[in-house]
Amino acid sequence: MFEAAEIGHTLSKRTYEREVPKLRQALLAAQYELLERKRFPVVVLVSGVDGAGKGETVNLLNEWMDPRHIQTIAFGEASDEESRTPEMARFWRALPPKGKVGILFGSWYTDPIVRRVLGEERRSSFERRLERIRHFERMLVAEGALVIKLWFHLGKDAQRARLKKLASSKKTSWRVTREDFRRFAHYDEFRSVSERALRETSTGEAPWHIIEGANPEYRSLTAGRLLLDGIRKRLDGPPPVLAPPAPPPVPSIDRRDVLNTLDYTRTITPQAYDTQLEKLQGRLNRLTREKKMRERSIVIAFEGMDAAGKGSTIRRITRSLDARHYNVVPVAAPTEEERAQPYLWRFWRHIPPHGRTLIFDRSWYGRVLVERVEKLCGEPDWMRGYHEINEFEEQLAEGGVILAKFWMAITLDEQLKRFRARQKTPHKQFKITAEDWRNRKKWPLYERAVSDMVQRTSTDVAPWFVIAANDKKWARIEVLRSLCERIESCL
Amino acid sequence: MFEAAEIGHTLSKRTYEREVPKLRQALLAAQYELLERKRFPVVVLVSGVDGAGKGETVNLLNEWMDPRHIQTIAFGEASDEESRTPEMARFWRALPPKGKVGILFGSWYTDPIVRRVLGEERRSSFERRLERIRHFERMLVAEGALVIKLWFHLGKDAQRARLKKLASSKKTSWRVTREDFRRFAHYDEFRSVSERALRETSTGEAPWHIIEGANPEYRSLTAGRLLLDGIRKRLDGPPPVLAPPAPPPVPSIDRRDVLNTLDYTRTITPQAYDTQLEKLQGRLNRLTREKKMRERSIVIAFEGMDAAGKGSTIRRITRSLDARHYNVVPVAAPTEEERAQPYLWRFWRHIPPHGRTLIFDRSWYGRVLVERVEKLCGEPDWMRGYHEINEFEEQLAEGGVILAKFWMAITLDEQLKRFRARQKTPHKQFKITAEDWRNRKKWPLYERAVSDMVQRTSTDVAPWFVIAANDKKWARIEVLRSLCERIESCL
Repeated sequence: MFEAAEIGHTLSKRTYEREVPKLRQALLAAQYELLERKRFPVVVLVSGVDGAGKGETVNLLNEWMDPRHIQTIAFGEASDEESRTPEMARFWRALPPKGKVGILFGSWYTDPIVRRVLGEERRSSFERRLERIRHFERMLVAEGALVIKLWFHLGKDAQRARLKKLASSKKTSWRVTREDFRRFAHYDEFRSVSERALRETSTGEAPWHIIEGANPEYRSLTAGRLLLDGIRKRLDGPPPVLAPPAPPPVPSIDRRDVLNTLDYTRTITPQAYDTQLEKLQGRLNRLTREKKMRERSIVIAFEGMDAAGKGSTIRRITRSLDARHYNVVPVAAPTEEERAQPYLWRFWRHIPPHGRTLIFDRSWYGRVLVERVEKLCGEPDWMRGYHEINEFEEQLAEGGVILAKFWMAITLDEQLKRFRARQKTPHKQFKITAEDWRNRKKWPLYERAVSDMVQRTSTDVAPWFVIAANDKKWARIEVLRSLCERIESCL
Repeated sequence: MFEAAEIGHTLSKRTYEREVPKLRQALLAAQYELLERKRFPVVVLVSGVDGAGKGETVNLLNEWMDPRHIQTIAFGEASDEESRTPEMARFWRALPPKGKVGILFGSWYTDPIVRRVLGEERRSSFERRLERIRHFERMLVAEGALVIKLWFHLGKDAQRARLKKLASSKKTSWRVTREDFRRFAHYDEFRSVSERALRETSTGEAPWHIIEGANPEYRSLTAGRLLLDGIRKRLDGPPPVLAPPAPPPVPSIDRRDVLNTLDYTRTITPQAYDTQLEKLQGRLNRLTREKKMRERSIVIAFEGMDAAGKGSTIRRITRSLDARHYNVVPVAAPTEEERAQPYLWRFWRHIPPHGRTLIFDRSWYGRVLVERVEKLCGEPDWMRGYHEINEFEEQLAEGGVILAKFWMAITLDEQLKRFRARQKTPHKQFKITAEDWRNRKKWPLYERAVSDMVQRTSTDVAPWFVIAANDKKWARIEVLRSLCERIESCL
C-alpha cells in the first residue's frame, strides 16, 4: 500500500511556482462558494509518519485559503476531563459546521494505531475500533460531510534522514521531539499497523490518499489539489450515493407488537404507591452516591406519545438525585448551530463526564419517530438511523455510561382523556396545542415506528423499557424500579 | 449584617404544608411564562455557610419547578483546563439563556472569599475582586438578566450543631466532608470576610438576600418566595432602570481626532517590504514559541472600515504561526444561541486556554461601532459598553492573555478606489455589497465612534494601535512590528 509513496516523487521548484498561484485562486474560490452556499462541511484528516510534512502542509493550506473559515484542531492526548467522557465526544465537538473547512490534525485514528503499535491494544479490539471508524465516517458522509483523508508517508530511510535534518537546524529543531525519535524505533510496526488501518478504512465514501512526504513541493501541491478536487466535485455535482441500507421494516403478519400486547390495566393503590415511591427514590439516591459511580455516568432517555407522563416521571427521578449532579435536557427544535451539524451532534454536546446523570426528555430517537412519521428526513436517513443510534449508544457504554431508555406507553383513549383534562385545568392549557390533536391522527404510524424502534435498538448496552402508563403511578414505580435494577446490573 | 439571620427564624410544619402547594403552583406558572416569553434569564446564586441547607434548597427548587428548564451548576475548584483560561470564562459558559433559570451553586464569590479567609489573598486584591463582581453583575442586569442572590446563614453554634447532626446519621453523612469541618475552624474569619463581601456587593440591581438556614421549613419557603417574587415582578413590570452612565462623549472643539491627524502618506518600497516582512514573521514565530508563552495566550482584535485590509493583514500574521495553535474568528451576525445571552458571551466562548493565539476579524467593539452607528442598541447600551469592554479586557489580561487591538485606518478616497477595484476583479466581486456603499454615507458617524472608542478603551493592558493603511504593505509591516513589540513588552 505504501510502495507507491516510496518511489521518490518530486516536483521541480519551477513547476511548483507556476502551479501554486492557480491552485490558490481556485481553492479560495471554492472556499468562498462553500461558505456562501453552506451546503456541506469539509472534514480534512491529516495523519501519517512523523516528519513527513503534516504540520507544514496544514500551515500551507491555511495560507492558501482564507484562514478565517478554517478550523484547524490538533488533537493531543485526551485531557483529564476528556478522558472522563466517552472517547468520541471530543471529535464530535471539533466537527466543522456546514460551509466551513475543519482540518483535524491527529484524529480518531491516532489512538488506535499508536496503542496497537505499542502493544497496548489487542488485535480484536483494534479491529473493532476500525469498524467503529468506518461506521462513523459513513455516517458523516451520509449526513452530507465531505471527508478527505490525507496520509503523509515516508520510507524508513527517508524518515530517519528527515528527522535528523530537522533536528540539526535551529530553525526547525522545535518541530522534532524526543517522542518522535522514540516512535521511530517502532517504524516497522507502525508501518504495518498503519497499512492495516488504512486498508480497512479506505471506503468508497471516504478513501485515504497517501502522499509521499519527502519532497515539499510535491506533497504540498498534491495535498492542495486533492482538497480542491474534493470540494469542487461536491460543489458542482450531487452528493455521493451511498448503498441503500437494508429494506425498511415490515409489520409482523399477525399485527402484534410491543405496544398492543402490553397490559394497560395494571394499577397501584395510592398507599402502595407512596410506600414504594419513597423506597425506590431512596434506593436510587444511594445508587448514584456509590463510589463506583464516580467512574460512571447515567444517561436516561424518555420517549412517549404526548401526555404520556414523561415530565412527571422525570420529576420523580430528579427528586431522588442531587440537583448539583444531574441535568435534564428537553429536546425541542434544533438551533441554528445544531442544524449545521450531523444529527447526533446535538446530543453528543450534552454528554457529561463521569459522576453525572443526564436525562433527555425526548431524545435522539426523534430521527426514527417524529422525523420518520412527519417525513422530516428521507427514508434512507431514518433507516440508517437505527444503526447510527446503536453505534452511538455502544460508544457511550464503552465510555462508562449506564444507559436506560423508557417508552411511556398509553392508549389512544387514555390520551384523549388526558387532553380533555388538560384543557380544563388553567395552568395546564399551555401544554395542549393544535399540533397535539393533529398528532393523534398519526397514531398508527407512530405505533409502527415505535415497534420498529424497539425491535432494532433495544440492545444489551442500552435496553428499552416499554412501560404501560395508563396508570401514571404504576408507571412511575415501574420506571424507578427498572432504572434501579438497570444501574445495579451495570455496577 | 448577619444578626437578623441568627434570631432563630422558624415556621411550623403546618403552615409550611399549607403554603407550599400555592407557592409551587405560582412558581411553575411563572417558570412557564418565562419560558414562553423568553424575555430574560434568571440567574440564581446560592452561597453561604456550610450546612445551612444550600444543597437541600437547590434540590427543593428543582422539585418545585420544572427541572427540565433549570440548569443547576455546582462549581468546584477550577479544572486543569479551566485554570489555564481566564477565571470568569467558566462562569460565562454557565449563564442560562433567556427564558431559563440557572442556579449557580458556588459562583464567582466562592474563590475570593475562601482565599481571603485562608489568608491567600491580600485585602487590596480582595477589594478589587469585589469591585469586579459588582461590575459583572451590573452588566448582567443591564443586559436584561434577573439576578437573585441567596446567602444561607447559620450562627456559629448552629453550624457546629448542624454539621455534627448531619455527620451522625448514615442517611446524611455524605453531605458533610472533612473539608467542611476544617472550614468550620475558620468560622469567625469566614463570617467577617463574608459580611464584607455581601456588604460591598449588595447593590440596588443585585442585592443579597440573607436567609437563616437552621429551620428547613423557614429557609425553603423563604427561598422559594424570593425567587417567585423576583420572577413575577420582572414578568409583570418593566426591567429595572439603572442609573444612566456618564453623558455621551462630545467631539473635541478643534475637530482633531486620532483618525484625521494620522499621516496617510507613509509608504514602503516593495523591496523593503519583502525584507521586513520576512524578518518580522520570523520574529513573531520565535516569540510564539518561547517557553514563557506556554503560560500565556494572545488575543488580537482587528477593526477597520470596509476594505481597510483586515483580512490580508490577518493572513500575514497567521502565516508566521503554526496552524495548530491559532484560530481566526470572523465575527458576523450572532447566532440564535448567542442572541439569548449577554453581549460579551459570544466572545468569551472563544477565549482559549494558554499557549494559543486567537485573532478576531471584527470583535466586541461592534457594540460601540456598528451597533452605535446603526442604532442596533440604545445609547445606554453602547455607553456602558466602554466600561464593560475595559473590564473584559482587564480580566483577560489578568488571566494571562496578551491583548493587541488594531484599527486599520483608510481615507474615504482610498476606500472608493478599493471598492472600484474589487468590482473589476471577478473573484473579489462577492466582497462588495450594497451595504458597503450604504456604509460609506455614514463615514463621519463611524469616524466619531472610532475616535470615542480609542479614547475610552485604549488602556495599558489592551492598547489600540491605529494604523494608517492607505498603503497596504506599509500597514502590514506596522501591524506586525507593533504586535511583536507588544508581545515582547508583556513577556
